[in-house]
Amino acid sequence: MSWTTDNQKNLMLFAGRAHPELAQAVSDSLGVPITPQTARDFANGEIFVRFEDSVRGSDAFVLQSCPYPMNQWIMETLIMIDALKRGSAKRITAILPFYPYARQDKKHRGREPISARLVADLFKTAGADRIITVDLHTDQIQGFFDGPVDHMHAQGQLAEYVRTKYGTDNICVVSPDAGRVKVGEKWADSLDGAPMAFVHKTRDPDVPNQIKSNRVVGDVAGKTCVLIDDMIDTGGTIAGAVSVLKEAGAGDVIIATTHGVFSHPAAERLANCGAREVIATDTLPIGEDKRFENLTVLSIAPLLAQTIREVFENGSVTSLFNGNA
Amino acid sequence: MSWTTDNQKNLMLFAGRAHPELAQAVSDSLGVPITPQTARDFANGEIFVRFEDSVRGSDAFVLQSCPYPMNQWIMETLIMIDALKRGSAKRITAILPFYPYARQDKKHRGREPISARLVADLFKTAGADRIITVDLHTDQIQGFFDGPVDHMHAQGQLAEYVRTKYGTDNICVVSPDAGRVKVGEKWADSLDGAPMAFVHKTRDPDVPNQIKSNRVVGDVAGKTCVLIDDMIDTGGTIAGAVSVLKEAGAGDVIIATTHGVFSHPAAERLANCGAREVIATDTLPIGEDKRFENLTVLSIAPLLAQTIREVFENGSVTSLFNGNA
Amino acid sequence: MSWTTDNQKNLMLFAGRAHPELAQAVSDSLGVPITPQTARDFANGEIFVRFEDSVRGSDAFVLQSCPYPMNQWIMETLIMIDALKRGSAKRITAILPFYPYARQDKKHRGREPISARLVADLFKTAGADRIITVDLHTDQIQGFFDGPVDHMHAQGQLAEYVRTKYGTDNICVVSPDAGRVKVGEKWADSLDGAPMAFVHKTRDPDVPNQIKSNRVVGDVAGKTCVLIDDMIDTGGTIAGAVSVLKEAGAGDVIIATTHGVFSHPAAERLANCGAREVIATDTLPIGEDKRFENLTVLSIAPLLAQTIREVFENGSVTSLFNGNA
Amino acid sequence: MSWTTDNQKNLMLFAGRAHPELAQAVSDSLGVPITPQTARDFANGEIFVRFEDSVRGSDAFVLQSCPYPMNQWIMETLIMIDALKRGSAKRITAILPFYPYARQDKKHRGREPISARLVADLFKTAGADRIITVDLHTDQIQGFFDGPVDHMHAQGQLAEYVRTKYGTDNICVVSPDAGRVKVGEKWADSLDGAPMAFVHKTRDPDVPNQIKSNRVVGDVAGKTCVLIDDMIDTGGTIAGAVSVLKEAGAGDVIIATTHGVFSHPAAERLANCGAREVIATDTLPIGEDKRFENLTVLSIAPLLAQTIREVFENGSVTSLFNGNA
Amino acid sequence: MSWTTDNQKNLMLFAGRAHPELAQAVSDSLGVPITPQTARDFANGEIFVRFEDSVRGSDAFVLQSCPYPMNQWIMETLIMIDALKRGSAKRITAILPFYPYARQDKKHRGREPISARLVADLFKTAGADRIITVDLHTDQIQGFFDGPVDHMHAQGQLAEYVRTKYGTDNICVVSPDAGRVKVGEKWADSLDGAPMAFVHKTRDPDVPNQIKSNRVVGDVAGKTCVLIDDMIDTGGTIAGAVSVLKEAGAGDVIIATTHGVFSHPAAERLANCGAREVIATDTLPIGEDKRFENLTVLSIAPLLAQTIREVFENGSVTSLFNGNA
Amino acid sequence: MSWTTDNQKNLMLFAGRAHPELAQAVSDSLGVPITPQTARDFANGEIFVRFEDSVRGSDAFVLQSCPYPMNQWIMETLIMIDALKRGSAKRITAILPFYPYARQDKKHRGREPISARLVADLFKTAGADRIITVDLHTDQIQGFFDGPVDHMHAQGQLAEYVRTKYGTDNICVVSPDAGRVKVGEKWADSLDGAPMAFVHKTRDPDVPNQIKSNRVVGDVAGKTCVLIDDMIDTGGTIAGAVSVLKEAGAGDVIIATTHGVFSHPAAERLANCGAREVIATDTLPIGEDKRFENLTVLSIAPLLAQTIREVFENGSVTSLFNGNA
Repeated sequence: MSWTTDNQKNLMLFAGRAHPELAQAVSDSLGVPITPQTARDFANGEIFVRFEDSVRGSDAFVLQSCPYPMNQWIMETLIMIDALKRGSAKRITAILPFYPYARQDKKHRGREPISARLVADLFKTAGADRIITVDLHTDQIQGFFDGPVDHMHAQGQLAEYVRTKYGTDNICVVSPDAGRVKVGEKWADSLDGAPMAFVHKTRDPDVPNQIKSNRVVGDVAGKTCVLIDDMIDTGGTIAGAVSVLKEAGAGDVIIATTHGVFSHPAAERLANCGAREVIATDTLPIGEDKRFENLTVLSIAPLLAQTIREVFENGSVTSLFNGNA
Repeated sequence: MSWTTDNQKNLMLFAGRAHPELAQAVSDSLGVPITPQTARDFANGEIFVRFEDSVRGSDAFVLQSCPYPMNQWIMETLIMIDALKRGSAKRITAILPFYPYARQDKKHRGREPISARLVADLFKTAGADRIITVDLHTDQIQGFFDGPVDHMHAQGQLAEYVRTKYGTDNICVVSPDAGRVKVGEKWADSLDGAPMAFVHKTRDPDVPNQIKSNRVVGDVAGKTCVLIDDMIDTGGTIAGAVSVLKEAGAGDVIIATTHGVFSHPAAERLANCGAREVIATDTLPIGEDKRFENLTVLSIAPLLAQTIREVFENGSVTSLFNGNA
Repeated sequence: MSWTTDNQKNLMLFAGRAHPELAQAVSDSLGVPITPQTARDFANGEIFVRFEDSVRGSDAFVLQSCPYPMNQWIMETLIMIDALKRGSAKRITAILPFYPYARQDKKHRGREPISARLVADLFKTAGADRIITVDLHTDQIQGFFDGPVDHMHAQGQLAEYVRTKYGTDNICVVSPDAGRVKVGEKWADSLDGAPMAFVHKTRDPDVPNQIKSNRVVGDVAGKTCVLIDDMIDTGGTIAGAVSVLKEAGAGDVIIATTHGVFSHPAAERLANCGAREVIATDTLPIGEDKRFENLTVLSIAPLLAQTIREVFENGSVTSLFNGNA
Repeated sequence: MSWTTDNQKNLMLFAGRAHPELAQAVSDSLGVPITPQTARDFANGEIFVRFEDSVRGSDAFVLQSCPYPMNQWIMETLIMIDALKRGSAKRITAILPFYPYARQDKKHRGREPISARLVADLFKTAGADRIITVDLHTDQIQGFFDGPVDHMHAQGQLAEYVRTKYGTDNICVVSPDAGRVKVGEKWADSLDGAPMAFVHKTRDPDVPNQIKSNRVVGDVAGKTCVLIDDMIDTGGTIAGAVSVLKEAGAGDVIIATTHGVFSHPAAERLANCGAREVIATDTLPIGEDKRFENLTVLSIAPLLAQTIREVFENGSVTSLFNGNA
Repeated sequence: MSWTTDNQKNLMLFAGRAHPELAQAVSDSLGVPITPQTARDFANGEIFVRFEDSVRGSDAFVLQSCPYPMNQWIMETLIMIDALKRGSAKRITAILPFYPYARQDKKHRGREPISARLVADLFKTAGADRIITVDLHTDQIQGFFDGPVDHMHAQGQLAEYVRTKYGTDNICVVSPDAGRVKVGEKWADSLDGAPMAFVHKTRDPDVPNQIKSNRVVGDVAGKTCVLIDDMIDTGGTIAGAVSVLKEAGAGDVIIATTHGVFSHPAAERLANCGAREVIATDTLPIGEDKRFENLTVLSIAPLLAQTIREVFENGSVTSLFNGNA
Repeated sequence: MSWTTDNQKNLMLFAGRAHPELAQAVSDSLGVPITPQTARDFANGEIFVRFEDSVRGSDAFVLQSCPYPMNQWIMETLIMIDALKRGSAKRITAILPFYPYARQDKKHRGREPISARLVADLFKTAGADRIITVDLHTDQIQGFFDGPVDHMHAQGQLAEYVRTKYGTDNICVVSPDAGRVKVGEKWADSLDGAPMAFVHKTRDPDVPNQIKSNRVVGDVAGKTCVLIDDMIDTGGTIAGAVSVLKEAGAGDVIIATTHGVFSHPAAERLANCGAREVIATDTLPIGEDKRFENLTVLSIAPLLAQTIREVFENGSVTSLFNGNA
């Protein structure tokens, strides 16, 4: 009473327009072409997207970085996902190397949004079944999405680079603020149990949100400091931290970050802050205007490609990180 | 076994940053101030919003126009709604005088999104209980939202202006394309049963999406033509329609539209297209760069204020339109 | 740590009781039998359905036309879908050649339902994952369903029949009212850019909903008019349109429609209205009592069968319409 | 920063077209008029409903009985609820004195629907916040609805009538089948701990669903038997039970039921089955063709009116049944 | 434009910690090992679970019995399901041989929960797609879950044991209360149409919830009574029923139940109540402290294993029960 | 066409059985009695709850602490909420002074649950509209609940106690691990910008999860150390931190925590660890067996009562914390 055939699954890769270099690199690494599409902007800012091949029944992976202007790229991704859903894709995975609005992950005070949760709900509503992302601002954001989140880590790649180039003998891992100390501890573990320090910001009780002073907690004198952060936006905090470290007698300062947002005037600040080297990945596009002499960019594409392959083939993503993802 | 008090309700008005003039006009007409808020843009485009007064238990009305850059304003509104929801507003009404992505209300071909439905779902997900909007591109969009939609009409206001200034004796109502003829019929009814015409676009079967010719269907010779449309974006279609009408022997041409998107080069095109007057409302901001000599702008603020009042007081919105809304 | 086998999928076809001829024709064309079922009506109108074969893991297609009494057939389909869901069908596609309540796709005035959206939600709630339908009253109804809608078009088949029989030299495409002019434009494109006309209904402002006069807009004198509509119910509007066309000097009038609802007294009206031929498809059952001499019925079954096959095999449905679906 | 007023609530009563007598009786008892509405049937069976007064902000109670043709009335109620939801009613309560599809409350075998759960989900989807119903076929159906269900009992009213007219000295409560024995026990408690009996149906293992014999379990000889059931449809089971009771030596047999479905040929069967009196309520319309000499109909309207009042005023519905509802 | 491979599916079996013997027996019968996991209890009662193998893409079956302390095991199962969902299992089936809170399947009075529905919703929320269970307290509970429920029956196995050991010549099937008579009827059918009886409990109207007397309805004198129930908790009701039967002249009494909850002092009561034999299955663990001399335990493991196999292979579960499941 | 009355709201307070002292204190402080209820445990662990007063239309606040056995109390709260929802409470707020499973707020590795998100979803599913909680393990947990979360802080109360008793001249704020440094920074701000330190745990790369050494980062020599944590369970970590601080030359050590879980052997450890005083609040019951000489317990009841009052009266909760909640 039926008509039976073998069930096949086919991987299709889709790319938003925010970061074509990364999309191409993932496509090359994976050996799967980016599905051709029409995408254009109307004069009033509306985006239109249409895929040129049938997506029916596909295991669809939609890659989109979210640099400035972020809201534009969020909406483009949502619209792409809607088109996939209505075009009968079988499963839709949004790959967001830089999770948008990650910094708004809690209410600091009343009447604030929790935009990182909102973003998770918007993706779910549009039709995303799963999310792949890299180095979330806080791990708890995984719990904002009602479905599987594969959380990749670039830290291993960054730490390996540091170890190879600088060794671990005289290293001290420094967190630029109190909120990143936990991440710093993971770095210290990766660098043979290196000692730690962080910058303690005190606030003036008489002036709201006014930083009064920055103090280094921990011993950095003469050390090669690896100053770490998940993202660097305009670079003010991190450049300030370099300055405080230098005052505290630090030796070389190396800055390592996963997400190089590098909004103006980050390039200038980082180039001139006194750091010996700044290391970032390409989860976000780092155009010529954002580059500077002592910047090193590592590519995240091989990791993303490998993750897509494991997800498609129902392998283990956890194994990519020795069980730690 | 309980503690009982009278239940009160309080109206609070919130405004996004896209069209402050309209928000102020609605606030003035309503006699309710706009709730003060902090809203700022981070360097990478992230928006942050915080309300300065408690919103707990309020009947919240969030007014946002969505001009260019539209995606920016959509996200800002969603974030404001999220903050209201988490701040315990009792009921949240999104007032969208110009419904975003209204033109993407169906799939013309396969693998396209239905972005107007997506937008409705995003607002629902963020926490909007209801929507108030003006002159939707198609009436069916009301059905995209899972909740009450109060659909206001500016046509009465526009038609009354035309009637007063031009009379109805020699009028012909013209739709610029086949899809707007139904709306044209409502205009004809408003103008004492005026005759109708429309522009028939034929396509070249050998060249996809290529318009071959525009023909006027209906008799416009010597008539004062009221050329109507729900929105005018870059003005190409409507300027072309004026040209075709003139060739067909039309007398004066008056252009009437609810939503003056007026993306570049609309101002120039409309100023020079040969129309005697262009009438629009202020559902969208029409800045100095979009203005031109023969443009008349009617304000939608009194209608929005009256609608908010009826919704808050559980009056009848339908009665504002003699039962036709 | 697991037990692995190949995954297979099997197509199963289910048919409601409203239109057995169409179901059988689709089954024959597809080469898949209709799954045997028990379906009976209790004395108080309750419907009971049970499938006689296991449906576990199947890709289930449920075909139901919705003629009079429509509510009966809607409920039967919902109950069948519920039984499939609880019986562990893997995917459920409702095939509704005539989408029920399509005319109620918007609120004309306040306090009205949007029943076409309600119907979409009911199907979703019962467990339908997808919908296949033919020539919706308005395209926007696709957006009412939260999932994929494959929207088939019978227009190509109907237009080809007209072209073959009547040529396109002296043709004029006529819409019976303002709301159908957009559809008329597609017909005109299919018939080599034929000219267009429509019937303009004016209303008496003093008597609500009272049509005052019908005017033909466009030039029909001496033309062979193809009068088109998506559905014909009692035939009053369409017969009136023939009469107005004849008064305006039209030559032969050919009526073409996808959905021949043909409620009494449609057969009599259409037979005697002066049209040379009436062409319809069999999306709805057209029994002997609804037939008349100059009626031609084209079968939709091959198109439905081909669509089911493409959906099951993850082919492209869009390609069935040269990219226009 | 706000505009504050007292919050008021207003009760509005709406009635479907299935049982106007009951609706009027409830309206009279409650002192609240039925909201005027337009409701009509299109030729193909589509229902259209529009309310003539504003429903905005109302506490809406929608009363609908569901006699034959049941699916018609279910859809009418869903459409009314959709119109209320979109018209901004504040809270919507569906009053279903006879819950539709209550007999389909479980799967007897595989591949069957659970239509009573489906119905609950349809009402929720359309927009019903709450349900009021009377004497469900099984109490568990309350759990099918995701929200409050006020479950009224007519048994008290029926039992009081029996007690007054027949006393309790020689009474035996009889359930017509095994599934109703639990309800019979409640009756026995109401009638001073009267003894019980039931009819045991045995099935032929060789013929599916074939009843082999009916046996009376319990002692009925010389007793006045109160044969109870929640609903009587065509009356076959209950007339058969009377016959078996008589054979077992029963004295007078009184039949008591909440829901008098009385599909043909129930009236004839009940009139001639040998029962002394048949008692029912008017949860369903009992027209002249369903009446017979020894039938007594008690009105459920006062109970419904009182329940609506308690729900509206946030009183206790439980207290209407001495804590047993 | 894609990368295509065969789709495979793999069955993985997971077991909560409540009833390891049953889990092992199912694993052995199925030939699929239990996936290794870490599960531990924090000092404050929090449970932590982690699977040691990748679960990505698996067809996951999670077996958990829910004996005392039931809430502990419910939460453990929900947490396991959450981990599977977030670990990208493809489909998750909760196997609950004893459905928790099944007795709370309705509101007896106002302001009570319907905990059996709540439990269904909790499982759905955690991520369960389907449920497999055995002999629900009432069949309607199937309708509480929004998805497929495979409802297994142990009755066939129990009845076959009784038939083989005691024959059916002098058997009488007895229900211990009015609510189980329907189940008793199925037993009577299985035992060649054996006669039935039940225990009628009368309540004192002056003392709430006070049982006044227990009466046997039906003729049990000299019969071998099979006293049946879906579950036996502390054994008070069932031991009382044996006593009443003996007083009414019954011969041997055999007690048969699916779920041997056997809370203290059930073992003592059942051992001493006068029953010749007590038969139960191992849906719940029956440890040494719950065992007594005349207790026979039949294993449900083969039935569960066979059901898992049919579900995994998309066979027919209904066929396991000759069409009656 | 309606029946209008004033709308009133009434606060009702409900208490689970886990921490009756706190419930009574909140009730006393608020001046609203705890609604009487029946709550009992069945022999197999099932919980039954019924309220003795009507809850219809109430603004219901359900207070439940979740000490050991936590799963028991979670289920009890869910069941209470279910009963309130089905009993027509208007709004349901769960007050969870100690949010259950807060430590499981992320996946450390693959195939782990995010139980804190699961718990949020369970409460939503049961019917909770809002949550009130105190000092979440991480702030992001607010974002796990789809609705308003009022997040109270006990830190102000604790810090004020420390300031009054110990002054701020020689204070150093110490975090016991890297993850709490951010919270430590808030404490430092409250104590006049006191200096900070934290304990850095290094892991042995060759032995999974094995702590290799604990180092104090920051200068604590001679300081009065305030060692802070959100919760103390068995006390191992915190006692270890005291020891490391002493070795590093710290003066007095004061331990301050919001949630005194104090599982065995916390009392012994804390009493003997060398700390001068341990300060906690009563969000969890601290029975005699958990008390020790140098323990000070501050009551959270006034803060909870004040929060309930503000929520009920639509006041500002944020204002309770000077804008910082």
